[in-house]
Amino acid sequence: MSVYDRMKDRDVTLPEPPRAGAVYAPVKQTGDLLFVSGQGPFVNGVARYLGKAGAECSLEDAHDAARLCILNTLALVEQHVGDLDLVKNVVKVLGFVASAPGFNQQPEVVNGASQLLVDLFGDKGWHSRSAVGTNELPRNITVEIESIFEV
Amino acid sequence: MSVYDRMKDRDVTLPEPPRAGAVYAPVKQTGDLLFVSGQGPFVNGVARYLGKAGAECSLEDAHDAARLCILNTLALVEQHVGDLDLVKNVVKVLGFVASAPGFNQQPEVVNGASQLLVDLFGDKGWHSRSAVGTNELPRNITVEIESIFEV
Amino acid sequence: MSVYDRMKDRDVTLPEPPRAGAVYAPVKQTGDLLFVSGQGPFVNGVARYLGKAGAECSLEDAHDAARLCILNTLALVEQHVGDLDLVKNVVKVLGFVASAPGFNQQPEVVNGASQLLVDLFGDKGWHSRSAVGTNELPRNITVEIESIFEV
Repeated sequence: MSVYDRMKDRDVTLPEPPRAGAVYAPVKQTGDLLFVSGQGPFVNGVARYLGKAGAECSLEDAHDAARLCILNTLALVEQHVGDLDLVKNVVKVLGFVASAPGFNQQPEVVNGASQLLVDLFGDKGWHSRSAVGTNELPRNITVEIESIFEV
Repeated sequence: MSVYDRMKDRDVTLPEPPRAGAVYAPVKQTGDLLFVSGQGPFVNGVARYLGKAGAECSLEDAHDAARLCILNTLALVEQHVGDLDLVKNVVKVLGFVASAPGFNQQPEVVNGASQLLVDLFGDKGWHSRSAVGTNELPRNITVEIESIFEV
Repeated sequence: MSVYDRMKDRDVTLPEPPRAGAVYAPVKQTGDLLFVSGQGPFVNGVARYLGKAGAECSLEDAHDAARLCILNTLALVEQHVGDLDLVKNVVKVLGFVASAPGFNQQPEVVNGASQLLVDLFGDKGWHSRSAVGTNELPRNITVEIESIFEV
């Protein structure tokens, strides 16, 4: 089943692929592996989710922020390879969650990204993962996710 | 010399492989590389080391927490490939240490993982590594370690 | 054009390759990939930049710290492969910036590393990247950078 069919079934549409904000590449390929730069919860360059999870940003919003990070990631992967059905495996996700003191639900936050990957890619979408906290992220975003795909 | 002989010499036994706590895979293989998800200092699903290194958790306990993280990692690698002697190289370790303000001994903490890898795998066990602090980790654990192995 | 010509043009010289401070390898190769351990802003083993970006360490100094981290990285890559012109691609950079509360310019800090990579390696130097904050780093350094190169 095509990734695009699964997207249609779930009313998922990809955003415009974000531009790199500095002197690096959004995606770098080496062999069959795509290393995707850390993505934030931006829409058209504007941060949609700000502040620390557990304080200014609720768990639910942080979860949605993670989902948006991975949507931006998928837009970049599609831009790079031309077709998401060419993805053979989602290899790895590393999620950084800006966390208020005492906030320890980073896995629940990053599930917003992981669930979408499994929903869209099926068996190929199961990935290794880490979810950790951080005290500060660029532009005060709530989540940043970097990832590796195999094509 | 077999990894299992070295384990016996050192009285090291592997724990039960931990289950992934969410929608991701404990280990994902791409080519010859195993990407192992971030592991915490859990025993049978219960966190054994909690709190910040340098505050609620002593350096010694944090060091042992890192060792436990990598024992869980090795249990997962064995589960995935069937035999730890099939490991050709420990490639990389990234250790996150929940750190109290002013705690800067992350390398000494993560040595608890690195030393065990070198002890058990010999030359193959020398790995690249980063050790960094973080303000919060999932479930308030003290250490989380992700890793890459070559088989 | 040789990396060494570009270095000469820019008056860039490599430092002595730093030694690993613990039980790990500065560089680990698997296939064509070099995983370089997290490097700090050390010169001959002495930390040159200390404290949190946005507090004890200015943005400008943190930027220079990131540049020094990647110079140490390049010294290690040269030591490992013998010749920086054998580098086919800079694959990935992950920069950790010790950040004071409210400091959100991690990308501007890590640009100190990224710009040098692009300056010295040209097209091959464009890399995927993440830049994140952290509350504490080893020895109280301001920046730690880990990286992957293809040879």
